[in-house]
Amino acid sequence: LVIDSTVVERNLRRMADYAAEHGLALRPHAKTHKSQRLAAMQLAYGAAGLTVAKVGEAEVMAEVADDLLLAYPAIDAPRTARLARLATRATVRVAVDSLEAAEALDRAAQEEGSTIGILVDVDVGLGRTGVQSAGEALALAQKVAAARSLRLDGILVYPGHASLNAERQEAALAEVGRKLDEVLELWERNGLQAQIVSGGSTPTALRSHRVERLTEIRPGTYIFNDWTQISGGWCSLDDSAARIECTVVSTAVPGQVVIDAGSKTLTSDLCPNDRESGYGHVVEYPEARIVKLSEEHGQVDTTACRRRPALGERVSVIPNHICPCINLQDSVWWRGTDGKLEPLSIDARGRLS
Amino acid sequence: LVIDSTVVERNLRRMADYAAEHGLALRPHAKTHKSQRLAAMQLAYGAAGLTVAKVGEAEVMAEVADDLLLAYPAIDAPRTARLARLATRATVRVAVDSLEAAEALDRAAQEEGSTIGILVDVDVGLGRTGVQSAGEALALAQKVAAARSLRLDGILVYPGHASLNAERQEAALAEVGRKLDEVLELWERNGLQAQIVSGGSTPTALRSHRVERLTEIRPGTYIFNDWTQISGGWCSLDDSAARIECTVVSTAVPGQVVIDAGSKTLTSDLCPNDRESGYGHVVEYPEARIVKLSEEHGQVDTTACRRRPALGERVSVIPNHICPCINLQDSVWWRGTDGKLEPLSIDARGRLS
Repeated sequence: LVIDSTVVERNLRRMADYAAEHGLALRPHAKTHKSQRLAAMQLAYGAAGLTVAKVGEAEVMAEVADDLLLAYPAIDAPRTARLARLATRATVRVAVDSLEAAEALDRAAQEEGSTIGILVDVDVGLGRTGVQSAGEALALAQKVAAARSLRLDGILVYPGHASLNAERQEAALAEVGRKLDEVLELWERNGLQAQIVSGGSTPTALRSHRVERLTEIRPGTYIFNDWTQISGGWCSLDDSAARIECTVVSTAVPGQVVIDAGSKTLTSDLCPNDRESGYGHVVEYPEARIVKLSEEHGQVDTTACRRRPALGERVSVIPNHICPCINLQDSVWWRGTDGKLEPLSIDARGRLS
Repeated sequence: LVIDSTVVERNLRRMADYAAEHGLALRPHAKTHKSQRLAAMQLAYGAAGLTVAKVGEAEVMAEVADDLLLAYPAIDAPRTARLARLATRATVRVAVDSLEAAEALDRAAQEEGSTIGILVDVDVGLGRTGVQSAGEALALAQKVAAARSLRLDGILVYPGHASLNAERQEAALAEVGRKLDEVLELWERNGLQAQIVSGGSTPTALRSHRVERLTEIRPGTYIFNDWTQISGGWCSLDDSAARIECTVVSTAVPGQVVIDAGSKTLTSDLCPNDRESGYGHVVEYPEARIVKLSEEHGQVDTTACRRRPALGERVSVIPNHICPCINLQDSVWWRGTDGKLEPLSIDARGRLS
């Protein structure tokens, strides 16, 4: 897995410029890269802090960032205790969607003598996590505001459902805005403020200014991009910073070649908006299609290609979804501006919960 | 990810007994567990050696085994050089399906002063790798037999296509037998012998005696089993040795709960024979269905359950495909016969090519 530093820098700059232009705080999601070095680059480009999905990621990223948001509903004792401990040395916020999680975090923070900031997770249409109504959001916010060791910081939404296509995205973002208005007006009528209104996801990131209430964004994939972003029209091929360099290991079966990247390298993730496109894009052979993966084999249909890659040839593949691919590597290759490769450690991979 | 030692021992014994009963050598595929300790257990149960998919796995497993088969077509210089080196201190065999791979391995072994055993990979119907005809198998075997630093050891087949259901399996195995007869008769007429005829895959393993020519089998998944094996009828629920212990982290959305296992834990692999079953089996709630995965979230449809799991509750999930799940962990939990948990290192995960 080779990462191009020039493309990374360009991707980081573009998002930082967008956020600055629209007065939005940028809190990149570190689950995409899990690398302290890349997190430090994001902070150098003006990020307000980092987003993480696991407590283990927060612990690793606390070495380079002092402001961390766990965009994940921590409820169990192992998670809440570790978060409360981390909150003694960094600003820690957690998104929660239940009274139980708020109580558990308050208990843990009380025991540790720390304070945990809370964002109330509001479902704006994805249907994954998040309270369902403004009333529930108010009840949870009031609980948090009254808790001894919690601090009500605001609201978190994840408009992941707005990624499918540009047309549906406009409607979905409008609905996000309406839902936020409803929740925030109810909070305001009850004397509660949301200092932070946090939105997320790379495909919607550059349209975040369409949702007026947002104060920050949490894109992750934008640092590398992937075939889902490119085929979805959210960026161009040149914006892809991470590619898998593969070797053709078999050409024995007519009409196909086999590359040494299977599901243990590319993952079985399909493009959500184009499930027939296969398991990644072969840059040098755009007509080729990676039709089937075993764990270490990628079967590439070459019947649409004028010529097929030769045995032993190297080809580059842009994965459908870069985040879980990075998560498979202990270390990747970082291509500097001089073209030289050096190892880049994926520091936070393999961390528990 | 918790592994039950009692079930592992039973699974290992069953396969060892079957192999012994039918005079078959057992060469378990270590890609499933990537653990030196589990490999050593397999050898203690009488395995003749180990199968691996990557040179890095071979290097790690060489610390516990002195007889290794790379069931993967090594052709590039990094792989062939490392294999040739390994062959100076262990018996190393490689399955190849091209003259080019045989030449590359011969060159590397000559440079290193070692000898590499070769199995000719013959496609018996899966259409992934393997020479297509008896004539090609003969030509490759003759090339290998004439090479200075290679040793022609036999044939490798992978009847992965015979896993779909019992009815198709019988027909597929009969076809494997016919193809092997054809190749081996041609070899014999040309004065070549196959000391080893190696077959693979867990679903077909216990029917390997139906293919008379086989001398060894290479099952991998049998050590743990998974939902693909259970739902396919190849084993029972009690034979599942590896489960993901999950916590319910959100119940905010009606009709579903969210568990803390997503695609970075369960992978996006579906059951090949039942693509509608979801992303794993929830043992305590068999009517539940894991319908959607994000990286760290598993959305579980609970509408068919009489009661749904509570927030914070622990549930056990049997993954669809255990091999790539193990590959996501640096360390898993080993439950001893006394019920105590201890860490088990996944020694060979994250190794290159």
